[in-house]
Amino acid sequence: MYDLVIIGGGPAGLTAGIYAQRARLKTVLLEKQMVGGQIAVSDIIENYPGFPSISGAGLMEKFEEHARGLGLEIKLVDVQNIALEGAVKVIKTSEGEIRAKAVIVATGASPKRLGVPGEKELTGKGVSYCATCDGPFFRNLKVLVVGGGDTAVKEAVYLSRLASKVYISHRRDKFRAEKMHQEKMEATPNIEMLKSHVLHEIKAEGGLVRYVVLEDLKSREKKSIDVEGVFIFVGINPTTDFVDVDKDSGGFIKTDQRLTTSTPGIFAAGDCRTTPLLQVATAVGDGAIAASFAIDYVEEFDTKAKNV
Amino acid sequence: MYDLVIIGGGPAGLTAGIYAQRARLKTVLLEKQMVGGQIAVSDIIENYPGFPSISGAGLMEKFEEHARGLGLEIKLVDVQNIALEGAVKVIKTSEGEIRAKAVIVATGASPKRLGVPGEKELTGKGVSYCATCDGPFFRNLKVLVVGGGDTAVKEAVYLSRLASKVYISHRRDKFRAEKMHQEKMEATPNIEMLKSHVLHEIKAEGGLVRYVVLEDLKSREKKSIDVEGVFIFVGINPTTDFVDVDKDSGGFIKTDQRLTTSTPGIFAAGDCRTTPLLQVATAVGDGAIAASFAIDYVEEFDTKAKNV
Repeated sequence: MYDLVIIGGGPAGLTAGIYAQRARLKTVLLEKQMVGGQIAVSDIIENYPGFPSISGAGLMEKFEEHARGLGLEIKLVDVQNIALEGAVKVIKTSEGEIRAKAVIVATGASPKRLGVPGEKELTGKGVSYCATCDGPFFRNLKVLVVGGGDTAVKEAVYLSRLASKVYISHRRDKFRAEKMHQEKMEATPNIEMLKSHVLHEIKAEGGLVRYVVLEDLKSREKKSIDVEGVFIFVGINPTTDFVDVDKDSGGFIKTDQRLTTSTPGIFAAGDCRTTPLLQVATAVGDGAIAASFAIDYVEEFDTKAKNV
Repeated sequence: MYDLVIIGGGPAGLTAGIYAQRARLKTVLLEKQMVGGQIAVSDIIENYPGFPSISGAGLMEKFEEHARGLGLEIKLVDVQNIALEGAVKVIKTSEGEIRAKAVIVATGASPKRLGVPGEKELTGKGVSYCATCDGPFFRNLKVLVVGGGDTAVKEAVYLSRLASKVYISHRRDKFRAEKMHQEKMEATPNIEMLKSHVLHEIKAEGGLVRYVVLEDLKSREKKSIDVEGVFIFVGINPTTDFVDVDKDSGGFIKTDQRLTTSTPGIFAAGDCRTTPLLQVATAVGDGAIAASFAIDYVEEFDTKAKNV
């Protein structure tokens, strides 16, 4: 039996791994796909203190090296659910069951879909949720970015270096992004802002995105714009379906100050929990807190086991 | 008038500075003594993700460079108090008043005193609260470390490399420190553990520490031990006297999820607030959250000012 199973290999999970290894807990980190999480597909990170400018993948390599250097075991498996046998947590994975005294859920969150016609069928055929991954395919082509927050505006600026023209449509008449990002966007000549516009449909030709239909909410006019790519940044969904603990209306896991969930011994850290800010800096803080209280929990667990 | 004044130049304050600069707030960071805070006097930090092993001072230099690289203004002044003129915060400093729309208090905390005879008079004459600062003065001499937590045990190990002999006394019969630190301590031949011992008095000769009087709580026996140095690590006090907001019984500032204090527009981040863990990782998370909501507050402030 493990002392601690950490589910998710992003900044929160890797930080928890660093703390758990230093406390000499028998720990394994389970990751579905690729260590690093959502941030590993980010172009450039400039607000994790200590690294003025680094790629998301580069920063996550450093985190992974740090954790592995302390001896952290990492397994690439998919977690299906967590059952309880008394106080023992039984984690069912794609490669069998793993038993643990404590669990930290650090599974992050993934992009929200708009749900417009064409979106689902054309994902990977012009529709994308990751500019760093797919931007290079649209060199010298035209793209539409949908959204008004930090990610949308940042990625629009990033895409403007590759695409010949970037449209950015936002349903409101004001962007919500950091001013610094907005200023960059406004100063970029090949970005055209479509405020108070909603995307109605994505249309294809020969199986690839060819144009989009937008509505101007002020004039109520519909218009078609030729684009080869559509990048959608309209929010995120937490990856929390597999775990049966209390969640908020968005599906984010509810925690107390110590990042304990409604089930003792199950902790949540990072973007998958109800948190005021989704940043590497805050995920790291969460990972440290969750691990510290998981360490306490494991010590209590052992003490109780001895006294039985 | 500044948009934002950050008080304190440790990890929380510098992170807040990074976020505020990126949001283009007119910001100044006020620091009393030396940028870096308590952590800058730490020997080695091995649990800030991304840096497997770095000196506290080295890490804080990187934070400072990061913040200054974004244009953060830093002033070395002492803050006396914060008054309110309507919604405007008036920060009284050793070099005059500074006005701001929002304030982030990130002043950290400082070591607790034991209050035993000899402690106060002999501070700087053998009594110390910082092994990194003062350890080198005790090369090949004997020292006593008082405390049972992470800091006490870590610093005992650090001092064992310098001193000929390190005693560590703790009032309980079990140390509270991370197991990794405890294991290191136990494996160090010139450290002698005095569990269930309390320090009663520090005695001098010629104005310098010469011996200590301890009591064994189990046998109730008193004993004298010759030491030239006494290092005290028994907890910390937050630096929060200058600010009139709600605090807990320990003097730590109370905050909500957004790190807002009881006064709108005054935020608290890092060790100076009621927080479950005092680490660089958590201070960094705090700095990011406090800055994000300070940015929102400044935007609201400006909107209200326009509408008046």
